Amino acid sequence: MNASEFRRRGKEMVDYVANYMEGIEGRQVYPDVEPGYLRPLIPAAAPQEPDTFEDIINDVEKIIMPGVTHWHSPYFFAYFPTASSYPAMLADMLCGAIGCIGFSWAASPACTELETVMMDWLGKMLELPKAFLNEKAGEGGGVIQGSASEATLVALLAARTKVIHRLQAASPELTQAAIMEKLVAYSSDQMVATLGTTTCCSFDNLLEVGPICNKEDMWLHVDAAYAGSAFICPEFRHLLNGVEFADSFNFNPHKWLLVNFDCSAMWVKKRTDLTGAFRLDPTYLKHSHQDSGLITDYRHWQIPLGRRFRSLKMWFVFRMYGVKGLQAYIRKHVLLSHEFESLVRQDPRFEICVEVILGLVCFRLKGSNKVNEALLQRINSAKKIHLVPCHLRDKFVLRFAICSRTVESAHVQRAWEHIKELAADVLRAERE
Amino acid sequence: MNASEFRRRGKEMVDYVANYMEGIEGRQVYPDVEPGYLRPLIPAAAPQEPDTFEDIINDVEKIIMPGVTHWHSPYFFAYFPTASSYPAMLADMLCGAIGCIGFSWAASPACTELETVMMDWLGKMLELPKAFLNEKAGEGGGVIQGSASEATLVALLAARTKVIHRLQAASPELTQAAIMEKLVAYSSDQMVATLGTTTCCSFDNLLEVGPICNKEDMWLHVDAAYAGSAFICPEFRHLLNGVEFADSFNFNPHKWLLVNFDCSAMWVKKRTDLTGAFRLDPTYLKHSHQDSGLITDYRHWQIPLGRRFRSLKMWFVFRMYGVKGLQAYIRKHVLLSHEFESLVRQDPRFEICVEVILGLVCFRLKGSNKVNEALLQRINSAKKIHLVPCHLRDKFVLRFAICSRTVESAHVQRAWEHIKELAADVLRAERE
Repeated sequence: MNASEFRRRGKEMVDYVANYMEGIEGRQVYPDVEPGYLRPLIPAAAPQEPDTFEDIINDVEKIIMPGVTHWHSPYFFAYFPTASSYPAMLADMLCGAIGCIGFSWAASPACTELETVMMDWLGKMLELPKAFLNEKAGEGGGVIQGSASEATLVALLAARTKVIHRLQAASPELTQAAIMEKLVAYSSDQMVATLGTTTCCSFDNLLEVGPICNKEDMWLHVDAAYAGSAFICPEFRHLLNGVEFADSFNFNPHKWLLVNFDCSAMWVKKRTDLTGAFRLDPTYLKHSHQDSGLITDYRHWQIPLGRRFRSLKMWFVFRMYGVKGLQAYIRKHVLLSHEFESLVRQDPRFEICVEVILGLVCFRLKGSNKVNEALLQRINSAKKIHLVPCHLRDKFVLRFAICSRTVESAHVQRAWEHIKELAADVLRAERE
Repeated sequence: MNASEFRRRGKEMVDYVANYMEGIEGRQVYPDVEPGYLRPLIPAAAPQEPDTFEDIINDVEKIIMPGVTHWHSPYFFAYFPTASSYPAMLADMLCGAIGCIGFSWAASPACTELETVMMDWLGKMLELPKAFLNEKAGEGGGVIQGSASEATLVALLAARTKVIHRLQAASPELTQAAIMEKLVAYSSDQMVATLGTTTCCSFDNLLEVGPICNKEDMWLHVDAAYAGSAFICPEFRHLLNGVEFADSFNFNPHKWLLVNFDCSAMWVKKRTDLTGAFRLDPTYLKHSHQDSGLITDYRHWQIPLGRRFRSLKMWFVFRMYGVKGLQAYIRKHVLLSHEFESLVRQDPRFEICVEVILGLVCFRLKGSNKVNEALLQRINSAKKIHLVPCHLRDKFVLRFAICSRTVESAHVQRAWEHIKELAADVLRAERE
């Protein structure tokens, strides 16, 4: 395929994408397929000669779409949102074309420098303490990781390296293994210190945990994967209070800030804690500026060596929405979750299980786990909406997460009507 | 931005991308900017109100492009290739639109199932032993990782978990830490067992190493990050001989197989070795098929929880090139590296440092490291072409890697003329 064919096919794909997004409400949110459905539909091996683009795009509708769970349908209320916006898609096209690998400053200076500045922009939106920012040539700074799991692993490895160095400096006779045997990583029953857990969007109290960690010289990593995006709104910023005690902090703009996956934002107070743990300097990656103190080589901040130009997505999204547009988007979601909450509260058969703070409502039928499992099973078999459950202590609970960028009050109302009907069926079946 | 504005802007972006790719030869391959160039060019914080798309696309040329190292320029001969093709870009647009997160089969069945089949397609292209394939419902299978570093880390953690379980089963009194203190990971001076090292594209002898590992019950991981793509050509397949002794194998289609970053292909002989190390089963990720034995939940195969629909890129590229098209692409690159090699060999001032097997030529001026450092410095200051060096034992060596999809004999010839001129300058300066 040459550039002129790409001009044609690329524009067809833009229309396909726009059609898909515009028509997504008409597609069944959860697919009908059974495990193994796809293999019989395609050849057992790659073709020797090229297929045409028409063949492929036709197969997308015939083979792929029937097996897709439509995460961006306004009837998708499962897991947590995953970001999707047109500005991010446009930026991704540009990212694919530039196609640079940003493991060092020299490998593509714009890739590194835009990332550093975008992480400062985002840090300021959250009113992060200045110690986490890069702009004043301080010791802190931000980096884009692929996922919150990677950010947490990076924090854990950096903390481990730091404590090993400290203990070995004090007692050079200690081996790494002897130290590692004694190391403890504390976590809550939902993992590291978390703001907005996946299960029920609960919050750890950083104002209690933070000072203890600082006093005991323990690394504090704070994960706000989902909730972090809400902190750009002044009315939710208090949920981040105590982050000033943390050594590292991360959240996922790819969840709730309209920056398509993957984009997990991570900040540290001391850049050297990361670069000390991950430094890698083969000759072929050396460049003339690297020891100048002026530049950032992000390969020392992460596990993979390669990295895409992901900050373009942040730049496009932040500029095309503006901070006010992003705040409005968060507020709309929170409003919709409270709308759903109030519908549930008006029905005496149901209960709300956890205080609704952001975009997640945990609810259930008053009664046994069995009846709630039956309700969820009916909901997900009907496939008009899609939810997933959680366990809170011993209770089986339904999670209703506001997810889609295009979800409106009408969808929430329709979802609730549907849930009520199915609940009536379940309760009737139980009585019989 | 709504769908109809996306139709318009998306098509403008397609044209921008096509123009960029068509005109890339006219751009200076390595930028002129100094560290810190970007920050003064953009505001210190995100705008409150939205900017227009025109503003942003204008800033791409004014702010971003001057700081880009053009990896896809036919004058870029640094590092190793990073893949770029139009079919992969089209697939990425679709991937962004579907925007599913494929951590479990249920989260989007098509995402998981296409990946499994594409990894089989690719395994067959390489003539991998059947034990690594999934299709016959055997114990093996493939997974897409983000990078070779992740694949290697995953293999290492899986190997560690496996040996700890084995030793604890034999001697239950042993603690994890006591075992870990004794564990040894063997590697060559370029890392794990590697086919085609980054430094000089050297090959470890799997036929020697493999049987020893098998006999001693040691996990053998084989990394062919760059070279792996070449094994789709029968004339290079012998370089993979001995992979039958490996427990895990990976290479990066995102380097040399036209599948844009990121796409690191990894296979294991026993899927349960990975899922045993990484299993994660909270209630909100459970689904009705998960214990059926019929499905794959790829979150157990990797470090991150989230994953994009990356197999779409493989599907588009494999179909639109066909195996023959991909083979032709690899062969063209190898031919060009031999063309450069023969130019170097014809000049008695130069020497070839390592046998040229695939697309990398390691060469230098006969003489001191200093004179070669001076030559590289002149080359990269002139910015007509871009190279990076390596150290082979104590020698400073220049690496000439065939990288761009659009590089032709004429570019290689021009690069060599340019290098010869600069070498003459360096040698003249040395004599003076």
